[in-house]
Amino acid sequence: MSSSFGQLFRLTTFGESHGPAVGVIVDGCPSRLALTEADVQRDLDRRRPGQSRLVTQRDEADRIEFLSGIFDGRTTGTALAMMVRNADHNSGAYDHLRDVYRPSHADWTYRAKYGIRDHRGGGRASARETIGRVAAGAVARRLLAELAGIEVLAWVSSVHDIDTDLDPATIEFAAIEADPTRCPDPGAAARMTTAIEDARRAGDSLGGVVSFVARNVPAGLGEPVFDKIDADLAKAMISLPAAKGFEIGSGFAGTRQTGLVHNDPFEPGTDGAPILTTNNSGGVQGGITTGSDLVGRVAFKPTATISSEQKTVNTDGEAITLAAKGRHDPCVLPRAVPLVEAMALLVLADHYLLQHAGDILPR
Amino acid sequence: MSSSFGQLFRLTTFGESHGPAVGVIVDGCPSRLALTEADVQRDLDRRRPGQSRLVTQRDEADRIEFLSGIFDGRTTGTALAMMVRNADHNSGAYDHLRDVYRPSHADWTYRAKYGIRDHRGGGRASARETIGRVAAGAVARRLLAELAGIEVLAWVSSVHDIDTDLDPATIEFAAIEADPTRCPDPGAAARMTTAIEDARRAGDSLGGVVSFVARNVPAGLGEPVFDKIDADLAKAMISLPAAKGFEIGSGFAGTRQTGLVHNDPFEPGTDGAPILTTNNSGGVQGGITTGSDLVGRVAFKPTATISSEQKTVNTDGEAITLAAKGRHDPCVLPRAVPLVEAMALLVLADHYLLQHAGDILPR
Amino acid sequence: MSSSFGQLFRLTTFGESHGPAVGVIVDGCPSRLALTEADVQRDLDRRRPGQSRLVTQRDEADRIEFLSGIFDGRTTGTALAMMVRNADHNSGAYDHLRDVYRPSHADWTYRAKYGIRDHRGGGRASARETIGRVAAGAVARRLLAELAGIEVLAWVSSVHDIDTDLDPATIEFAAIEADPTRCPDPGAAARMTTAIEDARRAGDSLGGVVSFVARNVPAGLGEPVFDKIDADLAKAMISLPAAKGFEIGSGFAGTRQTGLVHNDPFEPGTDGAPILTTNNSGGVQGGITTGSDLVGRVAFKPTATISSEQKTVNTDGEAITLAAKGRHDPCVLPRAVPLVEAMALLVLADHYLLQHAGDILPR
Amino acid sequence: MSSSFGQLFRLTTFGESHGPAVGVIVDGCPSRLALTEADVQRDLDRRRPGQSRLVTQRDEADRIEFLSGIFDGRTTGTALAMMVRNADHNSGAYDHLRDVYRPSHADWTYRAKYGIRDHRGGGRASARETIGRVAAGAVARRLLAELAGIEVLAWVSSVHDIDTDLDPATIEFAAIEADPTRCPDPGAAARMTTAIEDARRAGDSLGGVVSFVARNVPAGLGEPVFDKIDADLAKAMISLPAAKGFEIGSGFAGTRQTGLVHNDPFEPGTDGAPILTTNNSGGVQGGITTGSDLVGRVAFKPTATISSEQKTVNTDGEAITLAAKGRHDPCVLPRAVPLVEAMALLVLADHYLLQHAGDILPR
Repeated sequence: MSSSFGQLFRLTTFGESHGPAVGVIVDGCPSRLALTEADVQRDLDRRRPGQSRLVTQRDEADRIEFLSGIFDGRTTGTALAMMVRNADHNSGAYDHLRDVYRPSHADWTYRAKYGIRDHRGGGRASARETIGRVAAGAVARRLLAELAGIEVLAWVSSVHDIDTDLDPATIEFAAIEADPTRCPDPGAAARMTTAIEDARRAGDSLGGVVSFVARNVPAGLGEPVFDKIDADLAKAMISLPAAKGFEIGSGFAGTRQTGLVHNDPFEPGTDGAPILTTNNSGGVQGGITTGSDLVGRVAFKPTATISSEQKTVNTDGEAITLAAKGRHDPCVLPRAVPLVEAMALLVLADHYLLQHAGDILPR
Repeated sequence: MSSSFGQLFRLTTFGESHGPAVGVIVDGCPSRLALTEADVQRDLDRRRPGQSRLVTQRDEADRIEFLSGIFDGRTTGTALAMMVRNADHNSGAYDHLRDVYRPSHADWTYRAKYGIRDHRGGGRASARETIGRVAAGAVARRLLAELAGIEVLAWVSSVHDIDTDLDPATIEFAAIEADPTRCPDPGAAARMTTAIEDARRAGDSLGGVVSFVARNVPAGLGEPVFDKIDADLAKAMISLPAAKGFEIGSGFAGTRQTGLVHNDPFEPGTDGAPILTTNNSGGVQGGITTGSDLVGRVAFKPTATISSEQKTVNTDGEAITLAAKGRHDPCVLPRAVPLVEAMALLVLADHYLLQHAGDILPR
Repeated sequence: MSSSFGQLFRLTTFGESHGPAVGVIVDGCPSRLALTEADVQRDLDRRRPGQSRLVTQRDEADRIEFLSGIFDGRTTGTALAMMVRNADHNSGAYDHLRDVYRPSHADWTYRAKYGIRDHRGGGRASARETIGRVAAGAVARRLLAELAGIEVLAWVSSVHDIDTDLDPATIEFAAIEADPTRCPDPGAAARMTTAIEDARRAGDSLGGVVSFVARNVPAGLGEPVFDKIDADLAKAMISLPAAKGFEIGSGFAGTRQTGLVHNDPFEPGTDGAPILTTNNSGGVQGGITTGSDLVGRVAFKPTATISSEQKTVNTDGEAITLAAKGRHDPCVLPRAVPLVEAMALLVLADHYLLQHAGDILPR
Repeated sequence: MSSSFGQLFRLTTFGESHGPAVGVIVDGCPSRLALTEADVQRDLDRRRPGQSRLVTQRDEADRIEFLSGIFDGRTTGTALAMMVRNADHNSGAYDHLRDVYRPSHADWTYRAKYGIRDHRGGGRASARETIGRVAAGAVARRLLAELAGIEVLAWVSSVHDIDTDLDPATIEFAAIEADPTRCPDPGAAARMTTAIEDARRAGDSLGGVVSFVARNVPAGLGEPVFDKIDADLAKAMISLPAAKGFEIGSGFAGTRQTGLVHNDPFEPGTDGAPILTTNNSGGVQGGITTGSDLVGRVAFKPTATISSEQKTVNTDGEAITLAAKGRHDPCVLPRAVPLVEAMALLVLADHYLLQHAGDILPR
């Protein structure tokens, strides 16, 4: 189970890499939201393969089709279904993987779990599953913009050992999209490009970190105890393929500060809402938004698919060597950016509705 | 909402720091599990205040009482309720906080969310809420031991800038419990003790990292897409008070390796199950357990409560200064160890049942 | 599993007939609702045994205790826990039932399901579990009154073959509570009383029907497809002990009308909201409230516990005869009235919040 | 929200009457189940319009397409998506309904809830939504047959005032399908046919009752308190379009028996499992299956769409008259049969997996 995410703004995805289609049902999107396929296509185009020479050359147009939930250009409030047909599913290319467990893929674990496995391109574990997430995230983006002018951005803040030191408060969408790396620091972006191309040539791959920020987030989003907004963000991000770490605010680095430095002082603000003069909390205290920007980071491991030879075993338990053929990303980071945005948008939309639901009695 | 966690092994907690009681309902624990209050008390005693001079001196016996779900020393399969009365709730000590927002606590955010706040000791955001989690975790511990000999351990792997370099595979419970810091490296433990005592004297506080390992975990636990076992662990851990970061396996450090190094090679094993010769994956691939140890880390920020003076505002929006009085932990790490164990146990128990539910047709 | 009910206004109950306590956690009650233990006690007093000679003489004060979620007389928005200690748990009286399956009780089915059974007074299947429901329902009653002046009433509309013909639109609380039968038709109430007392003397028992009405329900509550408000009411009601049938509006009788008669014509109303001139729909069309009164009925079978001799088997599979000893209700109907009200209130509160959550964009 | 149903065997439907497609995602179907599109088509063909002159002549082939979750003719254990394209969506035929509230349809309530409405053929409230349910139910049918030889049948037991008196224990599939009414009593079927044709000619419509039975159901399915199997069946059935009443076992009629007659005596059986010599319980005691056949009934109101003139109002609040044009069923009962079966199958599959999940420790 578990193809669903969210409580009130709830998505359910379907589809494998080499089946007929991938898609998503969004249940709980409020009615009367103006929404077009172009709103969704825009984000899908940022996710799709073949955008630049840095990413996989699998050629998919990834055209979104609305199947239900829209009438006269507005959401009806009922289940919104969206689908993308898999065009370029060259399944034969995967025949040699039928009996092989690729290292650090989900091949062995799916086999262990299900006793059966769709070996074609990762099946359900394929990154193509994230098309549904990005489509749903695009709907959440429209909703949050309309409700509260909330804006979510993500960018590549490191690749391998190439770091950046950027202020999340000042990053702009245009600067992110200006380079195929989706790193808004041009110097670092150039070095990342070289590193990624070197890795590809070496039959190797690189990982890195995607950072995200959400702006104009009102104070009060997030539920106490288990459904803290940062806990839901953590789950959302770690559910992405290849994600191995999550930080909110100061994260692991914050453990090396003392409380006196780490605590975010309050100053008087307007309308009775205090202002935080620093943001080590990353916009969340006690699992609930403070009104400052929501800021976090997600670690993605180096791509598991590499063209160098690796030791592995086949389904008969025999030792073999394997070298990946075909198209793959030597570094998923640029394409992970819209995924991180989508997950942050989905969590925010869900918590926005949850907060609205509960805040019903007069103050 | 959101005082519940888990799908099949599901807990719901209640209680505030200074209300009459805290507790938990565990719904979905299989019937026929032998369980005594002593099984639960053992873990609660590791969580309770006043264990050592390193932690808060609030004196609570934290005696567990079973309210339902047990008959003749075994679980009945129905809702298992457990409660601890709050004995030492010296509420008057918090009167001066009624109108104050403590920096980096949940005071302002609860007020923003609910328009009302129980200011006494953090109310629902208090670490006392975790009593219910630890009690439920103790039940999960018994269940997992019985089902598959699964063992979960956590320990303090860093405090502030004092790091350890320990192999998760060899850590023993006795070594962890041998020192009040719950750091199984005696040299590091001694330095941590000094650092924590220095911080207390300086009116300051420290953070750090808790590591965890789960052993004897069968391959196949975890659900694809959203309810990946590492995604659920991420949510579970970040839902803990003061948690700011989560890593599974190689985590952020793994982003600085290349794929060739990071990929875990397979070797032939017994019974058709391959063996992973390294464990950068942390025991999870594609969100599903590999059969290797589950390994991860959780970052906890320095305690927000400090006795040094800090700038803040009151509920009238006026700038004030605040210095914490009374009992508090200068470093939560030692007491966070049983919390991290509890959350790992709860996630494992839930996924063990989920996998059992689905694996029903003949292989 | 399954001790929880509701999506946004969510209760989780615990407790057995002869354990230490029964109770409930309500998660999702909006903050700032004024609530006292007296508000809850009032409904519990209508449910408790020993109210009249018609019902079981088990003597329980059923005193509610708030354990969390209330501060300064208002809900905090966090988990609201309520508990009633079991005072009169004379467990020894059940020793003779340890190895017996009572006909039409849950004895055999619990044993079949769990392989273990708390034989004392029905254990978790006891009607005492409903204390938690009634307590939670009392909170929902206060909330709905505050939000929209919604009022929910239930009453006994038939006992065995004694029927009433009352107009749900005109029933008053005082008339219901005026008689121990909770039948607001005094003639029928008198006949019911005689029938119940006759049944008791004969070592037999009676069933009947409880009707309910909800007034001032706004149009638009209920979710399409599966979480229709009448579907949720059906589940809520059939989850009550001894419930065997549910009707909304015209119910089974409506199947004997034709469409021309059954359809509820619309007439122009005020504010653009049409008026339904009849209410065969029972206040629900397409699973969503029309703005008319919500009207339904619940069938309760005759009490399974009777003092006449019955054929049954013991846990060794031997044929035996059994005659109930001790206290029991020859007819549960009067005490089922507050249960039906509670379930209707819980469903309405949940759907009120769901509708508020989704109705967020400007009309 | 709420297009999802079930906890472990969970479906999520999408689609409107006159959108591009309708369909369903089934999440949680165990892996390794042999499944073909023909398995699903068989049930869809029993649901589709145009089967006989008794039902609507809308001509839809309703061809199922698998979109995901199947590999090499077996379920993979991941999300199983199925879709049917809407072929005959003659939307223009509904233009005259754009501004009209049809009596006893969901027109007014959707408008009240959402502030927007897809007026074409009922939109999401259309009976075409049930295609997804029937498709998912067909998967459940295969699963239950494989797991335990469970068989579910439904049939028309009354239309308007034409009743049958059939023993659920002896009904056969072939007898049900032998007549377009799906009433296995040929005499009653003939009278029903006449009545339905008379109603159509009179511009009127009829309701009735569908009965169902599930055979070979093991004891122990169903969860206590809220997720009783009969409570879930009640919700499932009342969520069907036009359903107004639900009974399990003796239902409303049972309230007119006394306990002595109503209680089902136990007799010694084999393997320690007692046998119930009667089945007033309908196969459920305390919400859990007894091992006897599961037996229940569902009331469906007369079709709301009739060609006679009716009083109603338009969206401007003006009184108008309306007479339905086009194709519609004068009696939904024959086509409701596969819907009732589907819902029973879905509930059983879900509870079978729930019981398997919990029954994990040695007995």
